[in-house]
Amino acid sequence: MDEAKKLIPLEAFDLILFGGSGDLAMRKLLPALYYRHRDSVTGGDTTRWRIVGLGREDLSREAYVAKVEAAARKFVAARDFDDAAWAAFAATLDYVRVDAREAGDFVRLGAALGDAPARVRVFYLATAPSLFASICENLGAAGLVTPDSRVVLEKPLGRDLASARQINEHVGAIFKEEQIYRIDHYLGKETVQNLIALRFGNTLFEPLWSRACVRDVQITLAETVGVEGRGEFYDNTGALRDMVQNHLLQLLCIVAMEPPASIDPDAMRDEKLKVLRSLRPMTPEDVATRTVRGQYRAGAVDGRPVPAYLEEPGIPPGSRTETFVALKAELNNWRWAGVPFYLRTGKRMQERLAEIVVNFRDVPHALFPSLSGERAPNRLVIRLQPDEGLELHLMAKVPGDEMRLRPVALNLDFADTYHGRQWDAYERLLMDVIRGKLTLFMRRDELDAAWRWVEPILEGWEQDSTPPRPYTAGTWGPAASSALVGRDGLAWLQDS
Amino acid sequence: MDEAKKLIPLEAFDLILFGGSGDLAMRKLLPALYYRHRDSVTGGDTTRWRIVGLGREDLSREAYVAKVEAAARKFVAARDFDDAAWAAFAATLDYVRVDAREAGDFVRLGAALGDAPARVRVFYLATAPSLFASICENLGAAGLVTPDSRVVLEKPLGRDLASARQINEHVGAIFKEEQIYRIDHYLGKETVQNLIALRFGNTLFEPLWSRACVRDVQITLAETVGVEGRGEFYDNTGALRDMVQNHLLQLLCIVAMEPPASIDPDAMRDEKLKVLRSLRPMTPEDVATRTVRGQYRAGAVDGRPVPAYLEEPGIPPGSRTETFVALKAELNNWRWAGVPFYLRTGKRMQERLAEIVVNFRDVPHALFPSLSGERAPNRLVIRLQPDEGLELHLMAKVPGDEMRLRPVALNLDFADTYHGRQWDAYERLLMDVIRGKLTLFMRRDELDAAWRWVEPILEGWEQDSTPPRPYTAGTWGPAASSALVGRDGLAWLQDS
Repeated sequence: MDEAKKLIPLEAFDLILFGGSGDLAMRKLLPALYYRHRDSVTGGDTTRWRIVGLGREDLSREAYVAKVEAAARKFVAARDFDDAAWAAFAATLDYVRVDAREAGDFVRLGAALGDAPARVRVFYLATAPSLFASICENLGAAGLVTPDSRVVLEKPLGRDLASARQINEHVGAIFKEEQIYRIDHYLGKETVQNLIALRFGNTLFEPLWSRACVRDVQITLAETVGVEGRGEFYDNTGALRDMVQNHLLQLLCIVAMEPPASIDPDAMRDEKLKVLRSLRPMTPEDVATRTVRGQYRAGAVDGRPVPAYLEEPGIPPGSRTETFVALKAELNNWRWAGVPFYLRTGKRMQERLAEIVVNFRDVPHALFPSLSGERAPNRLVIRLQPDEGLELHLMAKVPGDEMRLRPVALNLDFADTYHGRQWDAYERLLMDVIRGKLTLFMRRDELDAAWRWVEPILEGWEQDSTPPRPYTAGTWGPAASSALVGRDGLAWLQDS
Repeated sequence: MDEAKKLIPLEAFDLILFGGSGDLAMRKLLPALYYRHRDSVTGGDTTRWRIVGLGREDLSREAYVAKVEAAARKFVAARDFDDAAWAAFAATLDYVRVDAREAGDFVRLGAALGDAPARVRVFYLATAPSLFASICENLGAAGLVTPDSRVVLEKPLGRDLASARQINEHVGAIFKEEQIYRIDHYLGKETVQNLIALRFGNTLFEPLWSRACVRDVQITLAETVGVEGRGEFYDNTGALRDMVQNHLLQLLCIVAMEPPASIDPDAMRDEKLKVLRSLRPMTPEDVATRTVRGQYRAGAVDGRPVPAYLEEPGIPPGSRTETFVALKAELNNWRWAGVPFYLRTGKRMQERLAEIVVNFRDVPHALFPSLSGERAPNRLVIRLQPDEGLELHLMAKVPGDEMRLRPVALNLDFADTYHGRQWDAYERLLMDVIRGKLTLFMRRDELDAAWRWVEPILEGWEQDSTPPRPYTAGTWGPAASSALVGRDGLAWLQDS
């Protein structure tokens, strides 16, 4: 039997999906649920699964199911879309018209859900964060929050420390902390899971995993897309809030954390929190010298001309919102003191690429001439996108005469090694929510600590009257990003 | 251009091959020289290469060349045997009838060689060691040893410390130590070279390469063949002298040595010598408890029945010669104290296999359940035979739900990675001799130290009246071999 399909029993659950007709639900969440239903439920046990889409639109169940099916036919791979499996999954779907701000609608929702003692109830808030407060308040008022209820919060969770705290206050008034699942879908990716497995399931990495052996760490989350019709939202957000505060810092935590005592949620999250709290705070001078913000000009991506950020629909003239961030973080702790963690993210970059690069120090004393002239360092590359995989770069001997070295890579390509499709991050995370496994979700104090570190950068930039540095769409960002790393005598693994 | 073919200029040389019609010359040395000539000499430059076969037989040059060609057609891969390349190589061959014990023959040899100022002169002694003394004496007496002369000695170099010293005295009376190339063809293997490259060309291994991280090291040199018509020789030698004293201890040196300051011959050999001198001496009690000798009974290898050692031609009835040795060595030094080095070699084993296994310690604290139940350790496997390659065994996450681990291997398969044929060990070593590179050859004091460590085992066995433990041909040796490792709570990676 395919490992990935192995059945792990699920609790009986209702998943109540706010924003049930929205983009995230249609593109990611419902396809993910289809896959999990197809692969783990035999015999169409609809008494255990129930998925209730919510929206302001007045839709019949049939109309909603048709809408979901249309989306699934687009976002589920054709070879995986099976009519019988779909019918079984569709039978678990329901729809209720709910306006998040209408208390009365929640009473109707309660009636639709019925009495469900000891049934897991997941409220998934795939809506604008501005609705989180009223949704929670109305859920509470209607008495819908049972001891087995959970709430899933999608980003962005605030736009600064104060607003994040406000959201957490509102949600926390209705749900206990252990009922709150703050999702960061990067943590659901197989490769990120595997990085945890490799670090703490093997003895080989721990002796290498510190300032003694690591020269620098680079984390890149590069997109080729622009603002994709979400100009207004994006301009109000920017790359620092959209990517750094959450995804990049979470990946940094996974790389840098101490071995936890267990994989229990709090043991893991305590260690991640320690990393966030170890981040060396950015002084105003640091913001000037250790951060680079950029904004794309017109250029070409994959050979196709694309407009400048300022020409995208919904972007106000003269916007100074950053579409690119590069920064140098450091950790004030024994393991990592002095090791730069370079973080970088941007839109309209040269390639769609998400990867973590751990560069090990060079050999202290070179015994052999290398073929390439300069000594290529030892390096572990953890690739999250476009394909997930792991590469260990070493120097090995060129065969034949003499002792000359050249770089080789040992590969662990997940798609090759594990036949069968990979789970999408949301499949994994949704199953974890249903099973009540908080390990991969952010705790409130993590969110706080992340915002606390990011805020001085936001403030520094606000006070800085110079605009973001322009970069041509389809490149690796502004030259200042290369210079940031270059000043330390290093270079991005991928650079213009 | 194929990396392996790259031309590195050779000195002009004469290679004088004692035992020029013998098994080693025909099977290994002359084919190796053909390959090197084909791949590195352009335009058939016969003034630079000259190979002079010597033997007691009265042969014309033509008859000798025909004999070499017949052997080459058998031992060179058919796709590599090229008529034009062969003709160019054959033009470099000559033959002189020389009886090693006849001084007069060496005068004739001198006449054939002619005056060759500043031309490298390699005397390759592919004969019985009993002839080494008279060959060297006669070479000296005939004035054939020039400052650019080198002598290559094939094993066995003695059958104990005293006889090894005697050979070295005789050879050393005529040749300076830096002219003496004691060959161990295992050191010419690509994978052994690569182990040196990996250890000292990368930073990744050094932090792992000590008692802190290594649980045990296993070196296995297993043959499926029996005594192959050399019964008389073998019965007088046994596996300890034939394999342990030289090959196994040399491989142990490569694994265990400290990083040298350079790859200069003496820097490398000083470090290997330190390892040999760190070997914890075997007391008589150690010989009883830490060594296992075996002798094969009738059995089946590759599904074909094979006779017992005692039934092989040339083996005296009741012989107590060992065809199998397993032993536990330890090093009295800071890096390796307490780490067992298990060495094992035998004839008529289950598989033809030469490999070095470095088992790393288990994780100190298990965070994840593993799929296989028991936690598979991290392991580096360096394979020398049947195919050369390197595997790094890790635990990785099973894709999909939950955090369960299973073993995966990162492979560096040399044949796959480097297209084109691999050099045979003798090709590499012969080129090193011609270029005067002593790094991969044993120095006299190394040989001394190896014999000094082996001798108490020989003595202990002589005083022990129990016969070697029988094992069935086609297995991994006697049960006592498994028990030797099992007493430490460990197991051979490959075992019955």
